[in-house]
Amino acid sequence: MVTGTENLLGEFIGTTVLLVFGCGVCANLTLEKSKGQASGWVNIAIGWGFAVTLGVFTATTLGAPQGDLNPAVTFGKMLVGIYTFPQFLMTSLVQILGGILGATIVWLAYLPHWAETKDPAAKLGVFCTAPAIRNIPCAFLCELIATFFLMFVIWMIFSKPVGNMVPGYGPYIVGVLIWALGLSLGGPTGYAMNPARDLGPRIAHAILPIAGKGGSDWGYALVPIVAPLCGAGLAYVVATALGAF
Amino acid sequence: MVTGTENLLGEFIGTTVLLVFGCGVCANLTLEKSKGQASGWVNIAIGWGFAVTLGVFTATTLGAPQGDLNPAVTFGKMLVGIYTFPQFLMTSLVQILGGILGATIVWLAYLPHWAETKDPAAKLGVFCTAPAIRNIPCAFLCELIATFFLMFVIWMIFSKPVGNMVPGYGPYIVGVLIWALGLSLGGPTGYAMNPARDLGPRIAHAILPIAGKGGSDWGYALVPIVAPLCGAGLAYVVATALGAF
Amino acid sequence: MVTGTENLLGEFIGTTVLLVFGCGVCANLTLEKSKGQASGWVNIAIGWGFAVTLGVFTATTLGAPQGDLNPAVTFGKMLVGIYTFPQFLMTSLVQILGGILGATIVWLAYLPHWAETKDPAAKLGVFCTAPAIRNIPCAFLCELIATFFLMFVIWMIFSKPVGNMVPGYGPYIVGVLIWALGLSLGGPTGYAMNPARDLGPRIAHAILPIAGKGGSDWGYALVPIVAPLCGAGLAYVVATALGAF
Amino acid sequence: MVTGTENLLGEFIGTTVLLVFGCGVCANLTLEKSKGQASGWVNIAIGWGFAVTLGVFTATTLGAPQGDLNPAVTFGKMLVGIYTFPQFLMTSLVQILGGILGATIVWLAYLPHWAETKDPAAKLGVFCTAPAIRNIPCAFLCELIATFFLMFVIWMIFSKPVGNMVPGYGPYIVGVLIWALGLSLGGPTGYAMNPARDLGPRIAHAILPIAGKGGSDWGYALVPIVAPLCGAGLAYVVATALGAF
Repeated sequence: MVTGTENLLGEFIGTTVLLVFGCGVCANLTLEKSKGQASGWVNIAIGWGFAVTLGVFTATTLGAPQGDLNPAVTFGKMLVGIYTFPQFLMTSLVQILGGILGATIVWLAYLPHWAETKDPAAKLGVFCTAPAIRNIPCAFLCELIATFFLMFVIWMIFSKPVGNMVPGYGPYIVGVLIWALGLSLGGPTGYAMNPARDLGPRIAHAILPIAGKGGSDWGYALVPIVAPLCGAGLAYVVATALGAF
Repeated sequence: MVTGTENLLGEFIGTTVLLVFGCGVCANLTLEKSKGQASGWVNIAIGWGFAVTLGVFTATTLGAPQGDLNPAVTFGKMLVGIYTFPQFLMTSLVQILGGILGATIVWLAYLPHWAETKDPAAKLGVFCTAPAIRNIPCAFLCELIATFFLMFVIWMIFSKPVGNMVPGYGPYIVGVLIWALGLSLGGPTGYAMNPARDLGPRIAHAILPIAGKGGSDWGYALVPIVAPLCGAGLAYVVATALGAF
Repeated sequence: MVTGTENLLGEFIGTTVLLVFGCGVCANLTLEKSKGQASGWVNIAIGWGFAVTLGVFTATTLGAPQGDLNPAVTFGKMLVGIYTFPQFLMTSLVQILGGILGATIVWLAYLPHWAETKDPAAKLGVFCTAPAIRNIPCAFLCELIATFFLMFVIWMIFSKPVGNMVPGYGPYIVGVLIWALGLSLGGPTGYAMNPARDLGPRIAHAILPIAGKGGSDWGYALVPIVAPLCGAGLAYVVATALGAF
Repeated sequence: MVTGTENLLGEFIGTTVLLVFGCGVCANLTLEKSKGQASGWVNIAIGWGFAVTLGVFTATTLGAPQGDLNPAVTFGKMLVGIYTFPQFLMTSLVQILGGILGATIVWLAYLPHWAETKDPAAKLGVFCTAPAIRNIPCAFLCELIATFFLMFVIWMIFSKPVGNMVPGYGPYIVGVLIWALGLSLGGPTGYAMNPARDLGPRIAHAILPIAGKGGSDWGYALVPIVAPLCGAGLAYVVATALGAF
């Protein structure tokens, strides 16, 4: 049970770290003249996996041992009773702010590469997700399924029979989970699975003076917010039905 | 020793998780317009490896600490006395059902990509295995060898001198084993090594209204069922002869 | 707190190991006729990550439990009070010497490949970093950001709430951090993040009789020295402000 | 200290497992129509790394807790006093026999693929190493350097300050070492670093009725035998001089 607001600093900085590494790997693979350009999906999957690992370490150390970095995960834990509804809202807000800050740092790290990259969609893809095939109900379903397994397997990993992992192993195995989700369920939509991961950088994209940027595709923005929340909620229902709590 | 049927729920849901991640990575690499299309064998190997890791966590938490997810592994453990023959049959059945469910979820997650993919064999390859060279005795031999090393090395990893791993490390190292098997022995047949992994999704392929699907290649279906059982049995014979039990 | 000079041997040999594996992977991917030529950024990222892991093991065993292998990290720890200023200088010196020795060993291991490789810039790239786009302020900023996150996340990983990792896991997770930094922030400058990693091999490049070598690009040499020190200092300021110490 | 011959079974079967996974990944990437053909050096490096991990688990369980799988490692440990000279010879012999058996199993697993592969050198490359540039002194130097770091870092990893790893983590981190060696020092010669790994499969290649095979390149066979022994010996000298024992 989280009491008060002591988790907000960790969730804010932890999500910043998540997005620095996450949007960072997208920038490295996408932007023109970057040394890792077009180096393959394996890097996307590993990069986001370790981004979560390192973000969770950060959150834990700064007072947020839950280390959610993700409003959908926080929502799922609210259903279990770890957060109250106001705590869920405040935690989500700082996670989104962390996403904005993290994406901004990536923009700075890759500063001369934005002008070199002509395609506005490629630049937007560094910040937020877009479906490979523009079918909103299907994209919604895919994000719901991916987030369901994110939340469901987190509960499976950290439940009692397996729990009591050695220090530091938990963040690593959650990174493995994200890595695996990227490999397996990331194909159709780019696996947002996290409203803060998508909305935060999308806001950053809209605000920042990125050289030659296009629109921020707000028409899709609701999908990676609502579908992950639904997926996490469904995971709670199923895990409860299976007796996991 | 497993008593009664308390392991069936965990084996069912654990195998579902295995196939969601396993068939998922095949879909991501195979289907047209998927973001990970043609991103290389390394992803197949890692994806299936972590699929097993995450499936074993799930099975363990839901009451199946053996976490087999594979009738061949269950068969091998029956020979050691961990399961009775009726338990082997029931466990295998729920594993196959989990395979059907997992493959169905992947079909949903990649819903708009099936119509975009013209080749029926590519679509079938998301669900079940096929030999690279259509030589049934050689395919049988390869599946037997691969499953032999799956089962034999599992016994080597979890035997007494090495055992007592820290919580959560066992599922990880089994994932490494699957990852390595994919890299090393996966070339000729796609390394089913698991009747439920192959038959479950093959049944799903036959049943589901997949856009533009072809046949389910039932002529090959027996190989990834019988050869893994033989390989696991041979591993029991060899491990016994070497004094591993 | 480090007392005296007992850490110098470990830092020297540990940094040698770091550069053998680090420059080694650059040689393998860059030099003509090498078996791993052009095998992709994933190998660069993994190779440098594990180079740090193995170097830290080495340093620890030879009397340097801090296992910095990096003047910027040593500088950061000096700010926290682990080193005195003279210790920082001496430690940095032996780290640079280790860098020279490590790069020299790689030159020997790949001896027949230098004459086969025509491009002098490719040969220099085995030894030290260069920006993808020749914009010095931007390269400085990128190196500062990357080293900031190197140092900041190290403090997050090894702080009290997470600490007391099992033996050997610390060097591994630091390798994961380097791996992730390469994937995410390595695109613009090749992620030196370490004055010894860049200056040591650059000196080796200038001294060694490398077949068909060009200049050692001393015009860029200050950036991967000064920017990492600034990044580590900034990380100290931020971590302190966040209450990490 | 090893007493008697109780380690021979474990070293034999452990080296068999090493070569099944090691030659297996070479077969998967090299042979025509294999599903992992030309899938990149990252797989070679990971495949051989995990081959060692799994072989060490096997050796440990079957009575060989040293888990060398490599005459050069056994030679190095003989210098430290863990083995007598006759034990070194007998252990090396069973390691080579394990290499023959492991390579033979790979030949069977990939049985229909040999006739499909036209290039005899490619087929030989599944079994044993060859230098990228035919310069024997340079190849000797490279193998010596690579094996030096194999043996030296093993001693660094398992020395007292770091030791007492949790069960199963030691084999994993040795696999990481091999993985890193392949990435960093594998380019010129294919990193045999192990007389049994090279000679065993080379003998298998000479004996087995491989479809369309060429010669077994005995002119190179001494290099990956003698150079690794020299490298391990040099590592002993250096580690002793540095006070590691």
